[in-house]
Amino acid sequence: MEEKFLELKQRLMEIADLNKAAGLLGWDQRVMMPPAGAAARAEVLATLGKIAHEKFTSDEMGKLLEDLQSYEESLPYDSDEASLIRVARKDYEKNVRVPASLRAEMSRASSQAQQVWVEARQKSDFHHFLPMLERQIELRHRYIECFPNFQDPYDVLLDDFERDMRSEEVKSTFDQLKEGLLPFMEAVRERADLVSDAPLHGHFPVEQQRTFCLEILKHFGFDPNGWRLDPTVHPFASSIAIQDIRITTRYYENFLAPALFGSMHECGHGLYENGVSPSLERTLLARGASHGLHESQSRMWENLVGRSLPFWRYFYPKLQQTFPLQFSMVSLDQFYKAINKVQPSFIRVEADEATYNLHIILRFEIEREMIHGEIELRDLPEVWNSRFKDYLGLEIPNDSVGVLQDIHWSMGLIGYFPTYSLGNIIACQIWEKVLEDIPDLYEQFERGQFMALREWLRENLHRHGRKFTPRETLQKVTGKAGIDVQPYLRYLKTKFGEIYGLNGV
Amino acid sequence: MEEKFLELKQRLMEIADLNKAAGLLGWDQRVMMPPAGAAARAEVLATLGKIAHEKFTSDEMGKLLEDLQSYEESLPYDSDEASLIRVARKDYEKNVRVPASLRAEMSRASSQAQQVWVEARQKSDFHHFLPMLERQIELRHRYIECFPNFQDPYDVLLDDFERDMRSEEVKSTFDQLKEGLLPFMEAVRERADLVSDAPLHGHFPVEQQRTFCLEILKHFGFDPNGWRLDPTVHPFASSIAIQDIRITTRYYENFLAPALFGSMHECGHGLYENGVSPSLERTLLARGASHGLHESQSRMWENLVGRSLPFWRYFYPKLQQTFPLQFSMVSLDQFYKAINKVQPSFIRVEADEATYNLHIILRFEIEREMIHGEIELRDLPEVWNSRFKDYLGLEIPNDSVGVLQDIHWSMGLIGYFPTYSLGNIIACQIWEKVLEDIPDLYEQFERGQFMALREWLRENLHRHGRKFTPRETLQKVTGKAGIDVQPYLRYLKTKFGEIYGLNGV
Repeated sequence: MEEKFLELKQRLMEIADLNKAAGLLGWDQRVMMPPAGAAARAEVLATLGKIAHEKFTSDEMGKLLEDLQSYEESLPYDSDEASLIRVARKDYEKNVRVPASLRAEMSRASSQAQQVWVEARQKSDFHHFLPMLERQIELRHRYIECFPNFQDPYDVLLDDFERDMRSEEVKSTFDQLKEGLLPFMEAVRERADLVSDAPLHGHFPVEQQRTFCLEILKHFGFDPNGWRLDPTVHPFASSIAIQDIRITTRYYENFLAPALFGSMHECGHGLYENGVSPSLERTLLARGASHGLHESQSRMWENLVGRSLPFWRYFYPKLQQTFPLQFSMVSLDQFYKAINKVQPSFIRVEADEATYNLHIILRFEIEREMIHGEIELRDLPEVWNSRFKDYLGLEIPNDSVGVLQDIHWSMGLIGYFPTYSLGNIIACQIWEKVLEDIPDLYEQFERGQFMALREWLRENLHRHGRKFTPRETLQKVTGKAGIDVQPYLRYLKTKFGEIYGLNGV
Repeated sequence: MEEKFLELKQRLMEIADLNKAAGLLGWDQRVMMPPAGAAARAEVLATLGKIAHEKFTSDEMGKLLEDLQSYEESLPYDSDEASLIRVARKDYEKNVRVPASLRAEMSRASSQAQQVWVEARQKSDFHHFLPMLERQIELRHRYIECFPNFQDPYDVLLDDFERDMRSEEVKSTFDQLKEGLLPFMEAVRERADLVSDAPLHGHFPVEQQRTFCLEILKHFGFDPNGWRLDPTVHPFASSIAIQDIRITTRYYENFLAPALFGSMHECGHGLYENGVSPSLERTLLARGASHGLHESQSRMWENLVGRSLPFWRYFYPKLQQTFPLQFSMVSLDQFYKAINKVQPSFIRVEADEATYNLHIILRFEIEREMIHGEIELRDLPEVWNSRFKDYLGLEIPNDSVGVLQDIHWSMGLIGYFPTYSLGNIIACQIWEKVLEDIPDLYEQFERGQFMALREWLRENLHRHGRKFTPRETLQKVTGKAGIDVQPYLRYLKTKFGEIYGLNGV
């Protein structure tokens, strides 16, 4: 039996290697590749994906997983071995259900729709994009049909990003969030003038931004021996191996926030992948547990750490030294408020910490209604615009900054958006546990010490990788399995209540 | 039959994609990868190599190649289709002869020997390296035994780098070269003081070197849309795709020559791969015809173009503008002599254009004698040192700068060295043809025009890729199939005769 396990592991390691190669090709494509390399790169990526998929869905793989059922049951649930068999079986079962022809069609439709989406966004013309969206929704229905047992068709899509999550649970979580946030946001909006983010706009030479960001990241655990930081247009993090973490950021010469908080955000993703137990390397467990848990880590380092006052008590004098012209006349309090200004805006990726979730809730509700057939797709701009007015109080001037702003739907990524807000919520659930275990956490930040936090996260979350479901993982970290929106609401109300003088709202 | 051909092509394209992925992983490893990523990278590369090898040596592949024999014969020899079948068959036949177990052993022995070689070179201790070299020679003999028909066992090794080349031909070529060079070198040595390379030493900020190199490369055909230039420790060129060429160079703040001529050298390699006909993309023909032909291109752009007087008539004023402190008091004539100083030295990779070949001839003779069993391996340092004295007139002070200087033998690369000098020789054979067809070539250089040369090379050499054997390729380019050392000797004697006032020697 152990021999069969070793055979399974050997096969899975080869597949992991193919995926690592694809990961590097993808990183290179977005960070290094000269543009003319795009066509050949697409072919190489398609070939690697095809070979990995063939190997993973082979009959031999199915047979091995079947034969190893009793071996798995004989091992502790938490063991690397049982977890590998269990997760591989679940992945296998999902993969074999989808015919190769449908996969190929989905992949082609995504390429085509992305191109049309770019044109439509440029022209702000939703109707140019409409046929592509119709096709994507139709393909999602065919995908959903491959899976016979579901309460809600949207659950099938959600499961690809947040395994075992149900849309009912997301809906009730988001309803609570909305209920807590909307009146609070209303109160903040009335006091918008109390906070200015002017200090973040000015002149910030890229090389100095980069040096300062790296200084912060090194405090978080960025180690040049195993990490890279590179500029790119749409920042992301990628782990080529547990010991080879690539993060990216985008520098604006006249606006400090994107590189500063973006690099902390991607570092949070990187720390998760870098903290996976080395015993899981070259397996499908050497990744984060889910999109939501991953986002909890990026958001934690970006916001709970990087936008906190104790953090800046330590780093602000250094920032003032780096950009004296810009900051010598700006107090720590003014700077802290500037980086925490709440301001409803059209674009999700530019949204502040508090309004961000309303962008997500809007998308979740709409995409679920699309899948349920409750919206006529051609009416989408009106639905979007009127709900946006309700949630964020702004009139959308054109579809480019409205329903056409995100690439996700063109790629067929439906079920992805909610994981962004789940990440915010989970981050605060974990954070309350961290504060219980490390009572002087903020004092440590004031001294520039972040290693206790990183080690706590590594020990309680990161090292498990993808051994457990998101729910099981959350249970291990916090002692509670369910999503709980209250810590997040408490955090937002305390923090922004103080900044906007609203405590008691 | 066409269906079978399409199946063959489809299979070969997948293998080409795997090799492209490996190519990018290798480039990244040497240019971008954080050091801690090395172990995981080795696994990924091994997996890609294994899968590509399995696919290429599969029974189905053998059957297809057999079935397509008559189809191949029905097509014109020069056609892409016939060439693909022909070259794939030859590669296949070579690949299947070598058992997987021997391949694995060779690969393990190389990894181990490289490590020991690094230690031995550091300590300048040949006897530390000796057991590894013995093992490499033994493995080469086992490799040679896989191929039943050869005149000379060394031919089998040479064939991996220069297909169909015989060591007898190399020997007689190198003997002529030696005969022509040795007395000439002797005469140059006596006049060594006439030329100084002092102007190349000084202070050259890296960013300005890079900008100046890129300016030259753009004149040669480097296009940022499809090329990259990056710094690395051991420079090389790599084509990720015909439209995605990566070249590298090394900058020394206090010595201008390495980046300047190194980047032109690698650009020559890049232009070859970039000039392959797009119809050959994703096949095993989308590469240079051989190591010798490849080196002919790098040497041509580095030396025949980049160290020529007409080239610098155009570029020297620009170099003076870039580094005015360094060059305002140096005349074009002094600079031209500085970059062409002939000076025997210990290290091959630092050798000048004229002495370089003596380093190669020495290695070729010694490695052939090793394979023939004519040298006791333990006597290698003495053999090396005494022959070095004969050819270059210098006493080797220690093995680090003698027999241990190159990585090749530790990697099992025996049969590789001669292709460097073959490249020099072939470059001049081609050059004489270029000058016939473009009589005003040097006048064009003086005006900063290099496109006629590049187009000539693309039309007559580059576009064929690996469709033909090196011999056939040379025949197509020059009208003569054989290696001819005379053009190269004429070139060296004319050029260095002028510089050293030796004409008539």
